[in-house]
Amino acid sequence: MADQTYSLSEIVGTSSESVDAAIKNGIAAASQTLRNLDWFEVKEIRGHINEGTIADWQVTIKVGFRLER
Amino acid sequence: MADQTYSLSEIVGTSSESVDAAIKNGIAAASQTLRNLDWFEVKEIRGHINEGTIADWQVTIKVGFRLER
Amino acid sequence: MADQTYSLSEIVGTSSESVDAAIKNGIAAASQTLRNLDWFEVKEIRGHINEGTIADWQVTIKVGFRLER
Amino acid sequence: MADQTYSLSEIVGTSSESVDAAIKNGIAAASQTLRNLDWFEVKEIRGHINEGTIADWQVTIKVGFRLER
Amino acid sequence: MADQTYSLSEIVGTSSESVDAAIKNGIAAASQTLRNLDWFEVKEIRGHINEGTIADWQVTIKVGFRLER
Amino acid sequence: MADQTYSLSEIVGTSSESVDAAIKNGIAAASQTLRNLDWFEVKEIRGHINEGTIADWQVTIKVGFRLER
Amino acid sequence: MADQTYSLSEIVGTSSESVDAAIKNGIAAASQTLRNLDWFEVKEIRGHINEGTIADWQVTIKVGFRLER
Amino acid sequence: MADQTYSLSEIVGTSSESVDAAIKNGIAAASQTLRNLDWFEVKEIRGHINEGTIADWQVTIKVGFRLER
Amino acid sequence: MADQTYSLSEIVGTSSESVDAAIKNGIAAASQTLRNLDWFEVKEIRGHINEGTIADWQVTIKVGFRLER
Amino acid sequence: MADQTYSLSEIVGTSSESVDAAIKNGIAAASQTLRNLDWFEVKEIRGHINEGTIADWQVTIKVGFRLER
Amino acid sequence: MADQTYSLSEIVGTSSESVDAAIKNGIAAASQTLRNLDWFEVKEIRGHINEGTIADWQVTIKVGFRLER
Amino acid sequence: MADQTYSLSEIVGTSSESVDAAIKNGIAAASQTLRNLDWFEVKEIRGHINEGTIADWQVTIKVGFRLER
Repeated sequence: MADQTYSLSEIVGTSSESVDAAIKNGIAAASQTLRNLDWFEVKEIRGHINEGTIADWQVTIKVGFRLER
Repeated sequence: MADQTYSLSEIVGTSSESVDAAIKNGIAAASQTLRNLDWFEVKEIRGHINEGTIADWQVTIKVGFRLER
Repeated sequence: MADQTYSLSEIVGTSSESVDAAIKNGIAAASQTLRNLDWFEVKEIRGHINEGTIADWQVTIKVGFRLER
Repeated sequence: MADQTYSLSEIVGTSSESVDAAIKNGIAAASQTLRNLDWFEVKEIRGHINEGTIADWQVTIKVGFRLER
Repeated sequence: MADQTYSLSEIVGTSSESVDAAIKNGIAAASQTLRNLDWFEVKEIRGHINEGTIADWQVTIKVGFRLER
Repeated sequence: MADQTYSLSEIVGTSSESVDAAIKNGIAAASQTLRNLDWFEVKEIRGHINEGTIADWQVTIKVGFRLER
Repeated sequence: MADQTYSLSEIVGTSSESVDAAIKNGIAAASQTLRNLDWFEVKEIRGHINEGTIADWQVTIKVGFRLER
Repeated sequence: MADQTYSLSEIVGTSSESVDAAIKNGIAAASQTLRNLDWFEVKEIRGHINEGTIADWQVTIKVGFRLER
Repeated sequence: MADQTYSLSEIVGTSSESVDAAIKNGIAAASQTLRNLDWFEVKEIRGHINEGTIADWQVTIKVGFRLER
Repeated sequence: MADQTYSLSEIVGTSSESVDAAIKNGIAAASQTLRNLDWFEVKEIRGHINEGTIADWQVTIKVGFRLER
Repeated sequence: MADQTYSLSEIVGTSSESVDAAIKNGIAAASQTLRNLDWFEVKEIRGHINEGTIADWQVTIKVGFRLER
Repeated sequence: MADQTYSLSEIVGTSSESVDAAIKNGIAAASQTLRNLDWFEVKEIRGHINEGTIADWQVTIKVGFRLER
């Protein structure tokens, strides 16, 4: 059996709700164009502040997906 | 129009509840003394453990704010 | 009074629910074999993706505990 | 309103002139294939030397762009 | 003559044999979809263990390729 | 003679022109509120892109200044 | 079904032969005391030199293993 | 009871004597303007050399202090 | 002759006196439970401040020790 | 044909003018004692401030050069 | 007995064959001009790609050698 | 007046006594072959352990020196 190859793509998911929701939103968006998504790694957590409260969460993640042959 | 300048301040927000609440608490406290808060970046997530459960979450963040002229 | 010494152990807690739950699960598991757990530090947040949604969250943490004499 | 998602792409712009020109060249090239470019981050500055002078500047940048839905 | 631009893509090559073979496999797979591959950089070496022996090597690399105009 | 102490402050200078101008702008703004500025260190170079060209350069720097006694 | 927890242990495998052999030796030694070894990550590659040739390779790896309940 | 917030400030303590003295000097100077100093972290150790001996030690530290309400 | 394997353990030594004493205390404590200690690496220097003076030094070190067969 | 070997040397170029000029000055100085300079990598950008303006730019670079046989 | 001092030199070994061969070639070249080579540390693994296969491996290493008195 | 150039050299000072002594020893040794030593930066602190006590301290430093013209 041939060896698998994976590719990594870096995206920023956002949410007005929470860190977890920003990650989920990013993965949901990535899954619309990338097939065989297999894992993710969080790279950076940041966000905008508006009048003393968090306006949105921005979480940079890398997603790994299996290349098809 | 003149160019904007921003300043970064590093704070540690805490919460007995969650990572997100610790960040929100830190930003709320920062907004009491710093005006024009614009964004934040998470730098470190840690906390105290007491008898096998998390006693408090401590999240170090940098907040960026616009300097007034 | 003699000086305290602490030891650090690195574990990966997992959860199908959230980042926070993965950390809590990891600490709960660590507290079954390590006594005097005192603090934790998050080192890495990642997870598996299954059909476009997060199958599990994997959070690597270091836990610090006081060595007994 | 749904939450935005962004993608990051890593490119190396080059120039025989300057650091700034290498960055501008890289972004100009990226804008030919990527729409909605929103921000960039400099990751590495290097270059080739030929007979004691800089033959070209090579600047690695990440560009962020908004994914359309 | 116009200045060159390069793009970087991150992939994970795997092999049951060795570090070097995992890198070669990843580059071979990348060369099926990316033209003008010019250089690579190793970012991470890891793998799975099965019953005390290495089941597969996973090497994350960045590959750089020249953009055509 | 007593030993000197210095403090570090982190700011983001911006410019629509160049990396160097963004640094100069940030230092000029810092010098309006901080006395005895002595050195700076560049920490991050980024910026906004608008329609394929750089709208502004944002350079994060640390400035060191001597504390008076 | 309860969530899995993993532990990470850091070891240095050595070999007079090659990088790969040093990793294999380290994992083989670890598997004598640790059960359920699941993955490894290479952290550092170094070695001793003796009269201009490599006397031994020393590869620091982290091994992850599943905690039993 | 409300959750605590802490702030971090970065300073450079100096001494002609030793690393430890430079840290102590920096903290002593910080305590003249910052109340509730709670902990410190060493970030960088450097210094000047004059005629082959160390003229002064410069230790960059972050000090954390509790914000009052 | 078979190849050696080493293991790394991370501990935090403390002292009310100095950086060096904290390291020595940590190694002395580690040597009570770990045999064949061979080397150490300093990973972090921090401590608590009480009323403007250092209450204790906390030095995180990794100790390497040879595994017996 | 035998394989090439390169050596890396770290230098700090300075200029009262700009980042680019500091790099050029450093490479020009290096080329007076090192032959076959082939590439450079920027490692750090800093400088001195005098009365609110940049007195000099200091750019630490690594230069790579081919070893002759 | 006086205390030893060591010096570190950074070189790039290359090979068309493998990672290990590139390291060996670099050390062999270094041993022609540096005496008392004692250890090495791998810093970076990269290489050139030509028509989808690896044309050469480039491994940056630091070599440590004992200074003679 | 022409711009200064500096060079950085990396050395490991050792001592059976303390961190500070190891740094001083390294600088003293460097000053025997390098002129115009101007500053140092500590990069790594490690050492050997023998029977539960520190046999020697090894401190890796970079020393900067002004190149003469």
